Amino acid sequence: MTAAKKNSYQVEELAVITDSEIKGNKKLEVDNARGIEESLANSVTFADQKEYLIQALKSEAAVIVSSYQICEELDLEIKAEKTFLLTDNPRRVYAQIADLLTPRPYASGEISEKAVIDDSVKLSENLSIHPGVVIAENVEIAENTILAPGVIIGPDVKIGSNCLLHPGVIIERGTIIEDEVIIQSGAVIGSDGFGFATDESGHHKIPQQGNVIIESEVEIGANVTIDRGASGPTIIRKGSKLDNLIQIGHNVEVGEESLLVAHTGVAGSTKLGRRVTLGGQSGVVGHIKLADNTTAAARAMVTSPTNKGDFISGAPAQSHREALKEQAYLRRLPKYIDKIKKLEKKLEELENK
Amino acid sequence: MTAAKKNSYQVEELAVITDSEIKGNKKLEVDNARGIEESLANSVTFADQKEYLIQALKSEAAVIVSSYQICEELDLEIKAEKTFLLTDNPRRVYAQIADLLTPRPYASGEISEKAVIDDSVKLSENLSIHPGVVIAENVEIAENTILAPGVIIGPDVKIGSNCLLHPGVIIERGTIIEDEVIIQSGAVIGSDGFGFATDESGHHKIPQQGNVIIESEVEIGANVTIDRGASGPTIIRKGSKLDNLIQIGHNVEVGEESLLVAHTGVAGSTKLGRRVTLGGQSGVVGHIKLADNTTAAARAMVTSPTNKGDFISGAPAQSHREALKEQAYLRRLPKYIDKIKKLEKKLEELENK
Amino acid sequence: MTAAKKNSYQVEELAVITDSEIKGNKKLEVDNARGIEESLANSVTFADQKEYLIQALKSEAAVIVSSYQICEELDLEIKAEKTFLLTDNPRRVYAQIADLLTPRPYASGEISEKAVIDDSVKLSENLSIHPGVVIAENVEIAENTILAPGVIIGPDVKIGSNCLLHPGVIIERGTIIEDEVIIQSGAVIGSDGFGFATDESGHHKIPQQGNVIIESEVEIGANVTIDRGASGPTIIRKGSKLDNLIQIGHNVEVGEESLLVAHTGVAGSTKLGRRVTLGGQSGVVGHIKLADNTTAAARAMVTSPTNKGDFISGAPAQSHREALKEQAYLRRLPKYIDKIKKLEKKLEELENK
Repeated sequence: MTAAKKNSYQVEELAVITDSEIKGNKKLEVDNARGIEESLANSVTFADQKEYLIQALKSEAAVIVSSYQICEELDLEIKAEKTFLLTDNPRRVYAQIADLLTPRPYASGEISEKAVIDDSVKLSENLSIHPGVVIAENVEIAENTILAPGVIIGPDVKIGSNCLLHPGVIIERGTIIEDEVIIQSGAVIGSDGFGFATDESGHHKIPQQGNVIIESEVEIGANVTIDRGASGPTIIRKGSKLDNLIQIGHNVEVGEESLLVAHTGVAGSTKLGRRVTLGGQSGVVGHIKLADNTTAAARAMVTSPTNKGDFISGAPAQSHREALKEQAYLRRLPKYIDKIKKLEKKLEELENK
Repeated sequence: MTAAKKNSYQVEELAVITDSEIKGNKKLEVDNARGIEESLANSVTFADQKEYLIQALKSEAAVIVSSYQICEELDLEIKAEKTFLLTDNPRRVYAQIADLLTPRPYASGEISEKAVIDDSVKLSENLSIHPGVVIAENVEIAENTILAPGVIIGPDVKIGSNCLLHPGVIIERGTIIEDEVIIQSGAVIGSDGFGFATDESGHHKIPQQGNVIIESEVEIGANVTIDRGASGPTIIRKGSKLDNLIQIGHNVEVGEESLLVAHTGVAGSTKLGRRVTLGGQSGVVGHIKLADNTTAAARAMVTSPTNKGDFISGAPAQSHREALKEQAYLRRLPKYIDKIKKLEKKLEELENK
Repeated sequence: MTAAKKNSYQVEELAVITDSEIKGNKKLEVDNARGIEESLANSVTFADQKEYLIQALKSEAAVIVSSYQICEELDLEIKAEKTFLLTDNPRRVYAQIADLLTPRPYASGEISEKAVIDDSVKLSENLSIHPGVVIAENVEIAENTILAPGVIIGPDVKIGSNCLLHPGVIIERGTIIEDEVIIQSGAVIGSDGFGFATDESGHHKIPQQGNVIIESEVEIGANVTIDRGASGPTIIRKGSKLDNLIQIGHNVEVGEESLLVAHTGVAGSTKLGRRVTLGGQSGVVGHIKLADNTTAAARAMVTSPTNKGDFISGAPAQSHREALKEQAYLRRLPKYIDKIKKLEKKLEELENK
């Protein structure tokens, strides 16, 4: 993903890297990947539906990533001018190629004099550290990592290699970030969790002494907030992707390769399994476990544990099938209330006979 | 709106600018606009309801903006001491006057030495650029624009004239901002959209190569996130106003003069028409079109396209009238379930006769 | 809470401060407070349930905070090795001790040369002001307050003593913050409220001229947004605690010791009483009053005023008891619709007899 990138690639190199099959000119050199409408003469583009392939054939693009199946459906002749990379998963192949051909933003390879870096900080090779960055004491940063302008790193933080922290990201004290992590602007990693002990005199803060661990290949969206553990860590496991404006409570664990869509909230100490999907604006109560491959639809309010592969929706969330049924019944309610009224009338007539 | 402002105005000048009618002293000089309770001897205030007008008459204010209708309802004599600006839309007239008489925050007219500005940046006249601002390469900023402390501007950004970016605003690479745009603190414009291609090995990032275009007279709330297009732009059209903590997905288009209330989310590629209103905490799924003048109530979950002027609510959203009916039926459900039980009993009695 | 802290305490000092009773070694010296699993030989830990006490007895901790009741239930002998602090509210006692023994983050006691502080700013004793901080004109900051890296303070702000503003907090012009306030990273205090006057030509901004007042002992979560009053203040009263990503509209008043959970929104001019609790993702419409001790469950959509002590839920929110009933009826709906169908059939049979 973030291996040393080149400025251009031959199609045969891309085929090897992405495990796809070439139809056309193996030696063709390409230097960018674009959407169909934006593609240029030396672009790679992609088409995962027949109508898109028809558009792509008319575009400027030199190379089209598509699937065997879609490509077969089209007449051979009109395809002759283009070079194809064929696969069963064109979206994945395109993603890999586009990643190779897209420069990493903010990759200056320089450490700005306008950054403020504590003397105790350990920096590796080939870092890009921009103006306005502040790095506190006892921080370690591994090679090829980029800190865009205005990133703030609190004390005792460790950041792995090939990470990209966008402008204004805030990493609080003690956070551990592994390799190839991307964090979008304004995200806050390691804020204090919401923990208080209440008596008649008020709410007394329970110091939040844990930290946050973000495993490799995670992406965190803009203005997300991830609270540190009250004691022990909050963990975002390998390959998970969090959209914007999400709240993760203290001591939550997000399982590997989970997908959380914008405005979702997960309350304290809840554990999500592997490949859990939470739709936009959904919420999960604290102290429960969602099993691997659970999918919660947008706006679901999840209040109880799930079994592997459950698909749930609604508030409180239940089996999506049940939720749809309930909704359908609700929409038919007026009709049935009419029926009740008719029944009452008929029965009265019968009784009065 | 942001034409050169003066420190004080005569009432007759304000009447011309706002197209309102004077009753009283045309030559009166005023230098501020305030709420009724906060008004001073040389204030303009406003009253769009009769009870407010009664209060305003007792206040210190020299000038009262009100409507013909409300003013007529009151006795002439008690109004003699005040000067009036009369109109059919006192709120709009007051807004214009208050805007004229309120200094623009952070308008220093200076470029701070404590800002970090790349040599390639093109700056126009009369800019206010505060300490802690970072401006990357190839940025252009037009005249009279204000960058408050800690604003970060990524590479290749264009910002029009008379804009105001509050403290800590982050404008990501390639964003285009037109004139008279206001962005509240902590907003992130141009974060990467949530786009991944999944296979058995994980979620592969699809580089987000588009940008964000914010047309003139738009206002963006605090800690809002607007994702750049995956390919091509995300667009916020002229005169739209976005409240705080809103999420706008990649390639969304918000139509002219739309109003989006706090915590709203709009998923990728959805197009909102002109003057669409989305209530607080509402959500709109991706890839649909909401027609002009659609209004979605607070917390609506909009899952399908709308027709011009639709007023919708609920989750999933439906016609507000239907939603209210459904809710009313639901509240009457216990009563009807009782009726069913009675019917069963009666029927049994009849059968046993 | 933030009185001068020492590095270590004798158990008898802690007993006096927290009004708890010692069983064991009064002279024992402790220097940290930890969760059971993380505790060390000189730690204080706590156990508010019997199973936790059993764990705590096996842990490294020197001192266990627990309740009279739980402690009585256990055999005396096994407790002999540990020293106890007994109370009716172990969570509260632990919170106080942990607060005493946990160093304040970012307490450098220094004013960084890399902070930008306007000449007009009035600074008191023993401040910690970190690199990247920007403080505008006419600001006053009282003693022992900490501004972490990247905090931005607009003009005319007053901040009390013993406050802690985490990295990247933004305090807009004119805000007043009292003593012992904690604000988590990325929070925006004093953004403009959402106020416009609409006519056929567009939405005209009504300048937001009020401010925000945050009373003492308040804690504000990460990336929260609190709008300034349109005219007059928005107020967060003493001892209230706001979780992350909350939106507070202009001229809202949050009553003393209220608890607002993440992603909650409160619309303009609404007044919350004392000890109001709003669950996660809940919302309150504008211009209403919620009485003291109102509790709204997670995801409640509060559209009308409440009476003292009300417990409400649902959308629109109603008595929680009613909401549960409604939900139960809804789940039984399919069964009753079956009954209606049977009744129809039977009645038909009867009629045809």
